[in-house]
Amino acid sequence: MKPECLKCHSVRNGLEYSCSNCGSVFDLRVDFKYREKTEDNFPYIREMVSLGEQTTPILKLDSFSLKLDYYSPTFSYKDRGSRTLVSFIKENVSTDTVINEDSSGNAGASIAAYASAAGMKSRVFVPLKGVKSKLDQIRLYGAEIVQVNGTREDVKNAAIKAEGVYAGHSYIPEFRDGIRTLSYEIFSQTNGSIPDAIYMPLSAGTLFTGVLRGFEHLLTSGEIDKIPDLVAVQPERNAPICSEVDGIRREFGSSVADALVTRDPPLRSIILDGIRKYGKCISVTDNEILEARDALSHKGILTEISSATVYAAFKKKKIGNRPMLILTGNGLKTL
Amino acid sequence: MKPECLKCHSVRNGLEYSCSNCGSVFDLRVDFKYREKTEDNFPYIREMVSLGEQTTPILKLDSFSLKLDYYSPTFSYKDRGSRTLVSFIKENVSTDTVINEDSSGNAGASIAAYASAAGMKSRVFVPLKGVKSKLDQIRLYGAEIVQVNGTREDVKNAAIKAEGVYAGHSYIPEFRDGIRTLSYEIFSQTNGSIPDAIYMPLSAGTLFTGVLRGFEHLLTSGEIDKIPDLVAVQPERNAPICSEVDGIRREFGSSVADALVTRDPPLRSIILDGIRKYGKCISVTDNEILEARDALSHKGILTEISSATVYAAFKKKKIGNRPMLILTGNGLKTL
Repeated sequence: MKPECLKCHSVRNGLEYSCSNCGSVFDLRVDFKYREKTEDNFPYIREMVSLGEQTTPILKLDSFSLKLDYYSPTFSYKDRGSRTLVSFIKENVSTDTVINEDSSGNAGASIAAYASAAGMKSRVFVPLKGVKSKLDQIRLYGAEIVQVNGTREDVKNAAIKAEGVYAGHSYIPEFRDGIRTLSYEIFSQTNGSIPDAIYMPLSAGTLFTGVLRGFEHLLTSGEIDKIPDLVAVQPERNAPICSEVDGIRREFGSSVADALVTRDPPLRSIILDGIRKYGKCISVTDNEILEARDALSHKGILTEISSATVYAAFKKKKIGNRPMLILTGNGLKTL
Repeated sequence: MKPECLKCHSVRNGLEYSCSNCGSVFDLRVDFKYREKTEDNFPYIREMVSLGEQTTPILKLDSFSLKLDYYSPTFSYKDRGSRTLVSFIKENVSTDTVINEDSSGNAGASIAAYASAAGMKSRVFVPLKGVKSKLDQIRLYGAEIVQVNGTREDVKNAAIKAEGVYAGHSYIPEFRDGIRTLSYEIFSQTNGSIPDAIYMPLSAGTLFTGVLRGFEHLLTSGEIDKIPDLVAVQPERNAPICSEVDGIRREFGSSVADALVTRDPPLRSIILDGIRKYGKCISVTDNEILEARDALSHKGILTEISSATVYAAFKKKKIGNRPMLILTGNGLKTL
């Protein structure tokens, strides 16, 4: 299991974040049959850093189920990715190397926590505008926060140039590869009777591509017959992938979904392939998102605003007979 | 299993919060052997309201383990109590009855969420001063918030007088009875090799008495040989029970532990009996609490300030060879 360039298939030599030959991102593909013990599906890691991970609950409601994926060490699904990424980095650099990440939110907090758990230092590069509670969380884990005045691209470039190792979660494939565990978990929790549609928020696409790869692995291993409909959800004001899929041009603008801000995802081609093959892309307005957040919390389920997009999309368009909505972040993050 | 007055043993007739004969609180004792299936240990409830509860993780660190009891629907251990309390109320009143609770924090949020999940309305009476994030959380679940200008006693009295049913978590025994599940869970997760000391924050004592009753049940059922040392932890500035146990008088004042504010707990006699028989009371200063919170978060564990008291106490005085610290609230609640 070696990372290869998505386009030219050059093999990655070290921990570089993009292909030195063609500039594309690296991809990581499983080359063995699905193994029942989750950790055995990550042969490139000897020992996983642990912070109290466990199977996250599935809550069945009337006509759908919710996967509460914020029952997690730093309270978002990102921990699945940070855990593999940081465990992998820890085994491949000296422990005094600083882990650099660019994020203004959940990924930053998650990588900061896992870096601390691994006994390593981290630096999180953030744009000037950020959700205060998320920045506070990053800081509490002991990360150094570096505010960058500029575009999101400038923030990323500052992280890449900094001394240490760049762990950008959209680029380094060991992050999204960790998200495969979500598909395995759903498979195992439902005793193989997986949902026929899975709603997920879509921004940089680490969740979407991780889940896709997990189910593809289960399919090629003969464990499932069919990949569920993968329903990607974007906020109307930041819906580059939906626009590309349905050909309807949407204006960019700021949205209440603070975690879904990627405009030009490096994983674009994998996402588009996945959606065209297995899924749909649904965009939802700020009003729909906020209404969905309130409707869920009135059922006793408090998820972060960006995560409520999936319920907004479900209310708009019901897909499948046994749909599952992934709630990715704890509602305390955006009260 | 019928609630009886703690002092005069009068049996409770309805849902009254204190004994009409002597004014004391009601107590609820198990009168059967421990049953392996958790819900079977709550025979007074036909069907539990569900919000995605599950076994909360135990994280093993060097010389102690942490029970991350905030992996829970409203992100604090209170859900164990609210679940039984609200399920019980739901089965004993009409669904249009309003559930009244007095709390400025985690219990209020928890009861509000379970009331919504049960299809009932709730009203949470709060003091004027409160942690904003906790109030926001209560409101999001759909509860009506009633601010009361006055003492904590005034807040309680307003809740008691309001139309509906009073569900005060320190009074109605079905709340703390639900906390027994925590002891059962520890017993089952450790395959019977329970910790020899358990550190818990202490305020109104619902956690302490619930855990005590759970282990007593396991003991009288022959499942365990000995009750662990129950180490209650209070902030130095609000340590009425520690003061009573060790005879050292401490000044009252405000503390960083916003969730540990009870000065005159109605469960005082059960708590004192429990500590004298099985435990200790340790008080910790604000500085020690904040240092402990930071030290935990630098390990990647973000718990709320009041919950970090247990780690502060553990650093001050190590009890037992296999101590476990209960972390009761999610750190996002008090960033």
